Amino acid sequence: MARIALDAMGGDHAPQQAVLGALDAAERGVDVVLVGDETALRAELEAAGASLAIVHAPEVIDMAEDPAVAIRAKKGASVSVAAELVSSGGAVGMVSAGSTGAALAAAAFGIGRIPGVSRPAIATIFPLGTPTVVLDVGANIEVNAGQLAQFAVMGSVVAQVYLGVDDPQVGLLNIGEEESKGRDLEKEAFKLIEALPLRFAGNVEGRDLGRGIADVVVADGFSGNVLLKTAEGTSLAVGRFIMEALADAEDPVVQEAAKVVLPLLLQLRERFDPEAYGGAHLVGTRGTVVIAHGSSSRVAIANALVLASEGAEHDLVGRIEAGIRG
Amino acid sequence: MARIALDAMGGDHAPQQAVLGALDAAERGVDVVLVGDETALRAELEAAGASLAIVHAPEVIDMAEDPAVAIRAKKGASVSVAAELVSSGGAVGMVSAGSTGAALAAAAFGIGRIPGVSRPAIATIFPLGTPTVVLDVGANIEVNAGQLAQFAVMGSVVAQVYLGVDDPQVGLLNIGEEESKGRDLEKEAFKLIEALPLRFAGNVEGRDLGRGIADVVVADGFSGNVLLKTAEGTSLAVGRFIMEALADAEDPVVQEAAKVVLPLLLQLRERFDPEAYGGAHLVGTRGTVVIAHGSSSRVAIANALVLASEGAEHDLVGRIEAGIRG
Repeated sequence: MARIALDAMGGDHAPQQAVLGALDAAERGVDVVLVGDETALRAELEAAGASLAIVHAPEVIDMAEDPAVAIRAKKGASVSVAAELVSSGGAVGMVSAGSTGAALAAAAFGIGRIPGVSRPAIATIFPLGTPTVVLDVGANIEVNAGQLAQFAVMGSVVAQVYLGVDDPQVGLLNIGEEESKGRDLEKEAFKLIEALPLRFAGNVEGRDLGRGIADVVVADGFSGNVLLKTAEGTSLAVGRFIMEALADAEDPVVQEAAKVVLPLLLQLRERFDPEAYGGAHLVGTRGTVVIAHGSSSRVAIANALVLASEGAEHDLVGRIEAGIRG
Repeated sequence: MARIALDAMGGDHAPQQAVLGALDAAERGVDVVLVGDETALRAELEAAGASLAIVHAPEVIDMAEDPAVAIRAKKGASVSVAAELVSSGGAVGMVSAGSTGAALAAAAFGIGRIPGVSRPAIATIFPLGTPTVVLDVGANIEVNAGQLAQFAVMGSVVAQVYLGVDDPQVGLLNIGEEESKGRDLEKEAFKLIEALPLRFAGNVEGRDLGRGIADVVVADGFSGNVLLKTAEGTSLAVGRFIMEALADAEDPVVQEAAKVVLPLLLQLRERFDPEAYGGAHLVGTRGTVVIAHGSSSRVAIANALVLASEGAEHDLVGRIEAGIRG
C-alpha cells in the first residue's frame, strides 16, 4: 500500500488545514499518516469527528529558521520524522507545506537519493497551453552538465507519470535554438542529453512555453526559478492589464465582457497558484516527495497528497532509477 | 546636431522599409544618414520621391553569418560603416535591424566602449504595468559582480532617459528577496550595488515585474534573456488561453466579450513585439545604439531612429560616463 507521510505541522494553516486536507485525501483513496504533535493532531481529528494514523513528532521547524541548521538541531521535527518514515519503509512518499529549504534538507538527509542521482531537483508544471514540466526550479542554483542531463531523465519520467505523455519531448532552456548557443554549461549539456535514449527537442526558449514544443524544459535551478516566477508575474500583469482596460469602460457591452473575462482571469491566477495544483515535485530522492505552498489550504494539502500517492502508484522512483541507470 | 546612422541594409525588409522608416523619422525631426549600397538606396529614395544623406557601404552581413568572423572579414559592411561614422563623429548614434551579433560586434570594434565600462549591455523595456528596464538581456551571457553593478548604473540612466523616472529604483534579479539568496555572483553584486549612489530596491523576482517595485532589473545576460522570452511566451500563452475560452462559447454575451477582448490581446502582443517599441538599447558604447528586430517594418525603423535620437538629445552616453566614473 502506498502510504504517504504528511508533515502535519508544516505550513501557515497547520495543523488544522493539514488534518482536514489529509481527511479529504483519505476519502479520495490516499493512505495518509499524519506526522506531528500527537496531542494537537488528536484534537484536530476529534474536532473533525474522524481518525487517521499518527506518528508523533515533538518539534516543528519554523519558516524563519535556517533550514540546514534546523534540520541538524531538531531531530524530532515533523518534517524530519516524515522523511525518516519514508526512509524506514513506513511510507513511500511525503508531503510538506512547511519551509521548502527544510523539506529539501530533510529529504536529502532523511530519505536519501536514488542510486546514481547526483542532485534531486524540484519539478513544477507550467499550466498554460500544452502543460510543460520545468526542472530544476530552485533546488540547485548551480549545476554541471551531467546534472542537467539527469534532470532530463527525471523530467521525462515526471511528464510520463503526471502529464500522461508516453514519450515526452525534452528541451534544454537556452537563449536561442542553435546548438552553439548558451554558456559552456548548455553546450556540454546539449551533447549529453542528445546522447540519451529520450526524445530531445534541442534548445528551447521561454517563448516556447505552452506551445507543445517541449513537454519538459531542463534548466539550472537559477534560470528555472527565473522562468517560473517570470511566468507567474507576467500572467498576473497581463490579467491586470486586461481588467484595467475593461474596468475603465462605460460601454455596457464592455461591462458585460468584463463579467465574462474576470472569472477567466481568476482561473488563470489559480493555475499559477501552486496551491491549486498541490505542489512541486522533489524528484531524485527515494520517495515521492511533494512540496506544497506554505499557505496551503485543505484543498491544496489534499491535492498534494494525491500527487504523492499517484507518483508512488506509477512507480516514479523506480522509473527514475531505471532511467538514470540507463 | 544629433545625427543617427541607419544600417539601411540590415533586416528582412531592407533596404525598402529601412529607407521609408528613415523618411518617417526625418519627418519627426530625426537627422538620419542612410548607410548602405548607394545605388540601391538612391533607387528607394527616388521611388519615394524624397532625399536623404547617404554614406556608401559596399557590403552586407547576412543573418546566417558568424558575426565575429563577418565583422572582421567585411570592413565595408553597412553595419560596420555605420559604427565607423559614430566613431569618427559623423553621427552620434546608430540603428540596425540586421544580425544582432553583428551589430554588437560592430559597436564593440567600431564605436568602442565608454571609458570605464567593462561590458556594454542590451537593455529592453518590460511593457506591462509600471514599465521596467531590464538589462542585460543577452549581450553577455556570463558576467562578474562588478559588471552587474555597472549594469545597475547604466540601467538607471536608461530609466531616467526613456521612462522619465528621476530617481529610478534598481533591483537585482534573484530567486528570493533576502540578501543571502542567489549565487555568489548575486551575493557579491548585491553588496556592490548597495554601495552605489542610486536607489537600490534589493533583490527582485520575475513575479515583481510591472508592479512598480523596481524601475530597473539587473541580470546577467542569460537570466535576463530567459526573463524576457518567458515574459513574451507567457503573455502569448495567456492571450491564447483567454481567446480559446471565449471562442468556445455560444452565449452571445461571451461572443460580444470576445470582440472587446480580442483587440486588447492584440495590443498586448504588440507591446511585447520589439518592433512596436522600436528596439533594444545597446548601452555602454560611445553612441546611442538601438538594435531593431530583424523583421522591422518602416514603423519599427522610424521608432528605433527616434529612440536613438532621443538618447542622444538626453545625453545618454555622457550620463552613463558620469555614472560609471561615480
